[in-house]
Amino acid sequence: MSGVYKKIEIVGTSPTSFAEATRAAIEEASKSIRHMAWFEVVEQRGAIKDGKVSEFQVTLRVGFKLE
Amino acid sequence: MSGVYKKIEIVGTSPTSFAEATRAAIEEASKSIRHMAWFEVVEQRGAIKDGKVSEFQVTLRVGFKLE
Amino acid sequence: MSGVYKKIEIVGTSPTSFAEATRAAIEEASKSIRHMAWFEVVEQRGAIKDGKVSEFQVTLRVGFKLE
Amino acid sequence: MSGVYKKIEIVGTSPTSFAEATRAAIEEASKSIRHMAWFEVVEQRGAIKDGKVSEFQVTLRVGFKLE
Amino acid sequence: MSGVYKKIEIVGTSPTSFAEATRAAIEEASKSIRHMAWFEVVEQRGAIKDGKVSEFQVTLRVGFKLE
Amino acid sequence: MSGVYKKIEIVGTSPTSFAEATRAAIEEASKSIRHMAWFEVVEQRGAIKDGKVSEFQVTLRVGFKLE
Amino acid sequence: MSGVYKKIEIVGTSPTSFAEATRAAIEEASKSIRHMAWFEVVEQRGAIKDGKVSEFQVTLRVGFKLE
Amino acid sequence: MSGVYKKIEIVGTSPTSFAEATRAAIEEASKSIRHMAWFEVVEQRGAIKDGKVSEFQVTLRVGFKLE
Amino acid sequence: MSGVYKKIEIVGTSPTSFAEATRAAIEEASKSIRHMAWFEVVEQRGAIKDGKVSEFQVTLRVGFKLE
Amino acid sequence: MSGVYKKIEIVGTSPTSFAEATRAAIEEASKSIRHMAWFEVVEQRGAIKDGKVSEFQVTLRVGFKLE
Amino acid sequence: MSGVYKKIEIVGTSPTSFAEATRAAIEEASKSIRHMAWFEVVEQRGAIKDGKVSEFQVTLRVGFKLE
Amino acid sequence: MSGVYKKIEIVGTSPTSFAEATRAAIEEASKSIRHMAWFEVVEQRGAIKDGKVSEFQVTLRVGFKLE
Repeated sequence: MSGVYKKIEIVGTSPTSFAEATRAAIEEASKSIRHMAWFEVVEQRGAIKDGKVSEFQVTLRVGFKLE
Repeated sequence: MSGVYKKIEIVGTSPTSFAEATRAAIEEASKSIRHMAWFEVVEQRGAIKDGKVSEFQVTLRVGFKLE
Repeated sequence: MSGVYKKIEIVGTSPTSFAEATRAAIEEASKSIRHMAWFEVVEQRGAIKDGKVSEFQVTLRVGFKLE
Repeated sequence: MSGVYKKIEIVGTSPTSFAEATRAAIEEASKSIRHMAWFEVVEQRGAIKDGKVSEFQVTLRVGFKLE
Repeated sequence: MSGVYKKIEIVGTSPTSFAEATRAAIEEASKSIRHMAWFEVVEQRGAIKDGKVSEFQVTLRVGFKLE
Repeated sequence: MSGVYKKIEIVGTSPTSFAEATRAAIEEASKSIRHMAWFEVVEQRGAIKDGKVSEFQVTLRVGFKLE
Repeated sequence: MSGVYKKIEIVGTSPTSFAEATRAAIEEASKSIRHMAWFEVVEQRGAIKDGKVSEFQVTLRVGFKLE
Repeated sequence: MSGVYKKIEIVGTSPTSFAEATRAAIEEASKSIRHMAWFEVVEQRGAIKDGKVSEFQVTLRVGFKLE
Repeated sequence: MSGVYKKIEIVGTSPTSFAEATRAAIEEASKSIRHMAWFEVVEQRGAIKDGKVSEFQVTLRVGFKLE
Repeated sequence: MSGVYKKIEIVGTSPTSFAEATRAAIEEASKSIRHMAWFEVVEQRGAIKDGKVSEFQVTLRVGFKLE
Repeated sequence: MSGVYKKIEIVGTSPTSFAEATRAAIEEASKSIRHMAWFEVVEQRGAIKDGKVSEFQVTLRVGFKLE
Repeated sequence: MSGVYKKIEIVGTSPTSFAEATRAAIEEASKSIRHMAWFEVVEQRGAIKDGKVSEFQVTLRVGFKLE
């Protein structure tokens, strides 16, 4: 990969799945960060309402190249 | 969140996905526990039969308010 | 489960989801290993391209019976 | 300590400190559990409102003797 | 394994070995819980008296099916 | 919680307690970050001088909403 | 120890104890691997039947010299 | 910090708080160890009596310079 | 438990079992340390010779009161 | 150390060693961050090409004072 | 990276440094494994003789593509 | 290895590398401890001055035989 990278931690949320929460987080982050290269799943949690899963929450560590 | 909460650990299973196993566990638990507020994914495992995934198993820690 | 088992570590990849990456890894492994019985998710990562998730990567530990 | 013990996980909250959150959790639990013998701190978190700590949250594992 | 399971944490004690402490904990738990299916060793500790091991203590996580 | 969040890691210090170090870190961070929502205690350390605790140091992970 | 070693992961089972499960795993592995030098206990679990421990399961990492 | 340091593990206890247990441990250790420089909190536990916290126990790793 | 305690780490070995290795370590340590109160199992490993377990090795953390 | 610190995570790479990867990461980070005070090694990985180590990669957590 | 990968665990040794132990392990493994792509450092240990480091030992997890 | 061993934790420092910090720690420890047999790397940190690594710090657990 060569060069120096920075890693940040973001949390995505979705009413439907962890996969959607992951995509939402990456797409939101792409608005301010260029050159994102990989992510690592750090934590998976969620909210419950009226006895059902109401929200999936995924914490990601995202790596991107410093220019 | 204020007040005192209890956390229990449950395992959900599904032939199709971890997401379904998560929903199944929360819905079964909601039959006997009221006021569930959040869950944390603790472990993801599964069974294999004839060289294919036959079951997704997810262990959750679930928090609910003590009344 | 009785008997002696071996565990190996494999990494599956998929452009669509961790579930697909899991299935791909198990099916590839089934070509050379018989009697696979269970798997454990060890790590979930992924690649990012042009600000979007381009690949889901899942590391599994797979247990199978030694004959 | 002899005998068999059970451990449960509870979360206490307090606006002032982790120590108060710990005491609140133990005292609430003592309403329904007798013979509590020890606790272990598992996690310390909190809520923030208007740039200040608004709540301290402590997760405890509590051991008590089965009769 | 199909269905939904609950996991509880218990601590067994024995003056002779971790194996005996494990059996004691499972047998005590079987008095109030039906359908226990598996256990995981979480922690092994013990007490010392007059320079000798006086008690073996084992913490187990036990899974059983919810009916 | 809905939306996308970022988590940063900060270290607060105080001559009197971990609670004060926590408050100091959150209040300093609030000068440049809006919408902080929660914190997690990651590490507790301290300095010793002349055989006494001279400083409490607490590392926090702080979550806030991306706008 | 000099030279290069490989580590594999195996699971032994026994109806009587973790010690027996450990010995069973090592002896089975010795049929196909020469020069095993050490093992590390990674996990201890077991099965329960009719309220009693029916099987002890131990996961070992085993190191052996590559020739 | 330059030079070589040793780290030891001590446990402090207090009826009032973890902060007091920390101070008690450091001050007791200072009777036999000179040049203590820092501590790390390793574990926080406590005893319960009659449904109330009766003792706070904190395990510290303490670093000091070897002369 | 009140007072201040120190914890040290010792490794016991035995040709027959982890239980024997545990007892051997505690009894050896009791020659130079008084007031040992408890131990925690930190690691279980062993040596293999000619395809059989030749030595069980157990690492313990032992707590004792400082006088 | 007094005051409030922030920690960021960076990844350095080098074809020759982890030490060089560490230095490269710190020097690159120093272009945009002043007052860096310490680093912690979080992860060590690398790339392999044609059966040889082609790149050393080190992930560091770096602490610096907030002004 | 697309496709399915396997990860194995190897231990390299060297009298001079962890870097040399890493290179030795990868080069030995390359004799029997093709398409190695990356490694992760899992553990760093060593042997001591006559009060000096006599051997550096590094445990690596190595990933390679299944064909 | 037979017999009973003790493990202590030491921290070595060096301006040039982790390898030098490791050697410095072992050589300093050898002045007061005989029969050191092995070490394990527990933590790698360092100090930064003027945007450059000024000190490498390595924490080791060292095992030696009790006589």
